[in-house]
Amino acid sequence: ADPGALAEARAHHDRLTKPRGALGALEEVAVRLAGAAAVNPPPMPAPAALAIFAADHGVHAQGVSPWPQEVTVQMVGNFLAGGAVANAFAAQVGASVTVVDVGIAADLVPAPGLMVGKVAHGTADMTLGPAMTAEQAVAVLETGIAVARDLVAQGARCLVTGDMGIANTTASAALICAFTGQDPAEVTGRGTGVDDETLARKIEVVRRALRVNGLDGPGASALSALETLAAVGGFEHAAIAGFVLGGASLRVPVILDGVIAGSAALAAAGLAPDVVDHCVAGHRSAEPGHAVALAHLGLRPLVELELRLGEGTGGLLAHPLVCAAVRVMHEVATFDSAGVTEKEA
Amino acid sequence: ADPGALAEARAHHDRLTKPRGALGALEEVAVRLAGAAAVNPPPMPAPAALAIFAADHGVHAQGVSPWPQEVTVQMVGNFLAGGAVANAFAAQVGASVTVVDVGIAADLVPAPGLMVGKVAHGTADMTLGPAMTAEQAVAVLETGIAVARDLVAQGARCLVTGDMGIANTTASAALICAFTGQDPAEVTGRGTGVDDETLARKIEVVRRALRVNGLDGPGASALSALETLAAVGGFEHAAIAGFVLGGASLRVPVILDGVIAGSAALAAAGLAPDVVDHCVAGHRSAEPGHAVALAHLGLRPLVELELRLGEGTGGLLAHPLVCAAVRVMHEVATFDSAGVTEKEA
Repeated sequence: ADPGALAEARAHHDRLTKPRGALGALEEVAVRLAGAAAVNPPPMPAPAALAIFAADHGVHAQGVSPWPQEVTVQMVGNFLAGGAVANAFAAQVGASVTVVDVGIAADLVPAPGLMVGKVAHGTADMTLGPAMTAEQAVAVLETGIAVARDLVAQGARCLVTGDMGIANTTASAALICAFTGQDPAEVTGRGTGVDDETLARKIEVVRRALRVNGLDGPGASALSALETLAAVGGFEHAAIAGFVLGGASLRVPVILDGVIAGSAALAAAGLAPDVVDHCVAGHRSAEPGHAVALAHLGLRPLVELELRLGEGTGGLLAHPLVCAAVRVMHEVATFDSAGVTEKEA
Repeated sequence: ADPGALAEARAHHDRLTKPRGALGALEEVAVRLAGAAAVNPPPMPAPAALAIFAADHGVHAQGVSPWPQEVTVQMVGNFLAGGAVANAFAAQVGASVTVVDVGIAADLVPAPGLMVGKVAHGTADMTLGPAMTAEQAVAVLETGIAVARDLVAQGARCLVTGDMGIANTTASAALICAFTGQDPAEVTGRGTGVDDETLARKIEVVRRALRVNGLDGPGASALSALETLAAVGGFEHAAIAGFVLGGASLRVPVILDGVIAGSAALAAAGLAPDVVDHCVAGHRSAEPGHAVALAHLGLRPLVELELRLGEGTGGLLAHPLVCAAVRVMHEVATFDSAGVTEKEA
C-alpha cells in the first residue's frame, strides 16, 4: 500500500463533517483502498463484476457432502439462467455475472456468460495424493488472472469472487490448516449442512489429506504456496487465487466472499503477500475456518449474517458498503467548507 | 404479523435453490417483512426515503456533549446542501432525503427539502422536569406520522429513520432506562465522543432526569408511554416514534438507524406493540444502550461496523441488504423449476 495515500486518506477523514472515527470500520475500508490505489480519494469501486469459478472435487468420493456431485453443473445452469441467489444479489448491486468452468466433472454446452478454462474433470482425490499437478495449478491461476483482466478491460472497477463446487469446503479446510497451522478439528465445518457423523468423517478426511501430502506437522513449511495449493486445493481455489493476483496487479479492489475465497486468498498471499492490500473481506461465513483465514490475512469482514451459501453472495452484499465507504471520501463536506463548528477540545 | 404470510414465506424459502437456512439472518428479514405486509413475497422495499428529524435539547445545558448546540442547525444546512455522510449514503442506495425541523433552537430559512414542524426552540431541561408537554409530544408524533404518509404517497416503499440533535444520545439513554428498567451506567455511552469526566456527568444527568420525572425505581410503570416520552425524550424521538407508527399503519417497512431510533421505537412499541413487526434494525451502533433497546424490541441488527454518527447512516447502509433479502423471494428459482437435485436426506 502507498504510505502517502494512506496518510492522506486518514487526514481527509478527520476533516469531514462527522465526529472522528464515527464511521467505524468503514473508515478503515476507505483508507485501505486509498493505499491500495495509491491515490486519495480512491476510485469509486463500481461497477462490480462477479466471477463464479466452478469445479468438482475428487474428495467428494470420500462422502464429505450430502449433495450429489452433479449439483455443481446443475447450479451452473441455474447461474446462467439467472435463477440463483447470486444472480438476485448481483442484480441488486448492479454487478455483472460471469461463470467460469475450471474443472467441472461434466462437459457443458457453450452458453452466453460461460467461460471455459477446464483443465480436468474434477480434481484428484486429495486423500490419495495431490489434488492437481503443479502445471494444472499454474494453468488455472493464469485463467483466474485472465478473467480479472478481461472483466476490468470491460469496465469493472471492483471484482467479487464467487465459487461453485460440491465438496469445496473440505478443500478449503485443508488449505486453511496448511497455511495457518491450525488443526482440522478447529477449522472444518458443516459446509452447506452435514450431520455430526459426516462432520467427523470430513475432519478425518482433511487430516488424511494433509498427512498424505506432507502438510501436517513441522515439515509443512517445506512446501511452497503453489505446491500447497496443488496438493489440497480445488480448481476454483486456484482460479480465485489468480483472480486476486489479477485484480491486485491492476490496483482494482477484490471483494472476497466466504471460506472458499478466504482459503484461496491465503494461497494468493503465499505467492505475493502484498495482494492482501487490495482485498476486502465481504463477509464472515458460518464456517469456522473462515474466521481463522481472515485473522491470518488481517482482514475484518463487513457483513456478519451467518450466510453459508457461497456463489459470491456474501461478497455481493458487501459491495454497497464498500461503495458507501469510498463515496464519503468523494462527496462529504469538510468542517471548513460547510461552516460547521468543530467539537471543543 | 400475518401468520399465513409468515408460514408461506418460510415454506417458500425452503424450496429455493440453496441449502436450507443458507442465507442466515437475511431469511428471517424476508419472512418478517412477508408477515408485516401480509403477503408473500413481500413488496420490494424500494425506493427508500430518509427523514432526518432535527431538534435541540434543554439538557445540553448540563454539559453532556463537547459539541456546541449550534451544530444542530449547521448540520441541517449541511444536509440541505448535500454535504453530509447521510447524503452520500442516500445517493449510494438511491434514497431521497427530507429534513424536518421539529424543534431546533434556531429559526431556519425555508429551503427545498426542509419541512417545518417546530413546536418549540428545543426541549426543556429534563433534569428540572418534563422535557416537553404531552401536547407537544402528541403534536410531534403527529408530524412524524404525517411525514411517513407524505413520503409513501410520493412513492417511497421503505422508510429510513434519521436524526440530528446535539445531546440526543443523553435523551436516548434516559428513554432506554425508562422503558427497559436498565441502569443509566449500563446504557449511557460516549455518543459522538465524550471523555471519561463528561461520561460520568452524563450518567449522573440521566439518573437525575429519571428521578425528577418519577421514572426511577418501581414507580416507573405508573407513567404511560406517552408520558415517558414527554418526560425524557427529545422532539426527534417523538417524531421518529410517529414515523414508525405511520409506516406501520401503511404496512411499509421502517429501517431503524441507531440508538436514537432504537429508543424512539421503544416509545412507539409502548404506544402500539405491533409496530415492531414493521421495523428492521439497520445497524447496531457503538452506543451501549442501543443493544439494550434492540434486545428489548427483539430485533437483530443487520450492520455491525461500530458506526456512531446517526443521521440515518446505519439505516441507509442496511437498505441494500433488506432489498437483497426480499429480492431472493421474487427472483430465485426453486429446486423443481431449475432442475437442481436436492440434498440427500
